[in-house]
Amino acid sequence: MSKPKIETCFSPSLLHLYDIKESIVVIIDVFRATSTIAAALEQGAKEIIPVAQVDECISLGANIPNAITAGERDGKVAPGLQHGNSPLEYPRSFIEGKTIVLTTTNGTRLLHMCNDAEQRITGSFLNLGAVCDYLLAQQKNVLLACASWKDRYNLEDSLFAGAVYDSIGEHFEMNCDSTRAATHLYKQAKNDLYGFIQDSSHFLRLSKFGLQYDMEYCCKINQHNVLVKLEGERLVTVM
Amino acid sequence: MSKPKIETCFSPSLLHLYDIKESIVVIIDVFRATSTIAAALEQGAKEIIPVAQVDECISLGANIPNAITAGERDGKVAPGLQHGNSPLEYPRSFIEGKTIVLTTTNGTRLLHMCNDAEQRITGSFLNLGAVCDYLLAQQKNVLLACASWKDRYNLEDSLFAGAVYDSIGEHFEMNCDSTRAATHLYKQAKNDLYGFIQDSSHFLRLSKFGLQYDMEYCCKINQHNVLVKLEGERLVTVM
Repeated sequence: MSKPKIETCFSPSLLHLYDIKESIVVIIDVFRATSTIAAALEQGAKEIIPVAQVDECISLGANIPNAITAGERDGKVAPGLQHGNSPLEYPRSFIEGKTIVLTTTNGTRLLHMCNDAEQRITGSFLNLGAVCDYLLAQQKNVLLACASWKDRYNLEDSLFAGAVYDSIGEHFEMNCDSTRAATHLYKQAKNDLYGFIQDSSHFLRLSKFGLQYDMEYCCKINQHNVLVKLEGERLVTVM
Repeated sequence: MSKPKIETCFSPSLLHLYDIKESIVVIIDVFRATSTIAAALEQGAKEIIPVAQVDECISLGANIPNAITAGERDGKVAPGLQHGNSPLEYPRSFIEGKTIVLTTTNGTRLLHMCNDAEQRITGSFLNLGAVCDYLLAQQKNVLLACASWKDRYNLEDSLFAGAVYDSIGEHFEMNCDSTRAATHLYKQAKNDLYGFIQDSSHFLRLSKFGLQYDMEYCCKINQHNVLVKLEGERLVTVM
């Protein structure tokens, strides 16, 4: 039996180069959307509704029972919203059973751009193991899709792509230099991921807002053993 | 005095993210256009006219005195053309004083896409030192622009970008994860560049046409001490 294919897309601007119709697309936005999503769902949030705009977030949040609104712009809770975009902000005691309407820039946009995909799941270091287990079990083509920063390649998302390939690559067919580069980088970084990532544009940007502790947490592997899938317009846990 | 900025663009599909109007753009197509260009010009070719299509190559070649036509498709001299796209094909005894009308796919397209740039030069490992010396002397913003393969990220072009930054980066301001990733990769690869590149999609593709020796040559550093610049529609040597 031939192996399914695995590829990596470094930027939403490159998405048109990949055929995603028969693929599982893993949306990767390590700092911090997909990390926050993994943490909140594993802590018992009922569902997360990703939206692009703050306005949409507010109006949707007002119409859903037991919902909170969340999202940041420039490292602060966006005006009109209730909560931020930190994986540390959603302990079980607070979030269990609630719906989060979450506005993010890069991750949400990519999620919606991948409408044609057979499946969309989200990935972060926090739930790396769950992502890998799921991809192995599904035996389908995979696109590791980096949300990047305003379409620019970023290190942390590609490092996660490399982590996936480093873990389960042998079970896939691969002829994709993006995946190769990501894996080389991950192998270089894996013994001190947080140290490595400190020389990156996103780390430097978010550090100005005092978010180092958040980013350190986002570099931890397998803190939240949860598989997150988009069902309709909602991100939910798949058992 | 503030330092000029250096950035790396991994694919022509990402070019819109960069402001090139006040930049020197280094066009990078290691396998093999910019390697062949460096070799032929250093061996005394008068000029190289890069064109996109085989037809255009033939008609232009017929109208220029002392011109040859060159270009490959799928590893073979394209039908109707006289010569190929190998840096080893143009010794001084053959090429001195001649005009080469060269058709390539990825490199030529990117060269034309960068019309707005302040300057366009070409880069390859074969003329790495000349490129670095020129960039240092110019003290202008730099975009290291990878031709890639049909818009897909490739290893060899980004490794060259990393080689440039590894060599002269300290003289530039840099906050670009593509440049960081390229430099990490180059540092990993530099002691055995040809060995490293053998696990890459372009190497695997061109190997099928028996072009390993060509690619090995393209991985040699500073074989051709020549700075190549686009002047009008012609690539020429800058003294």
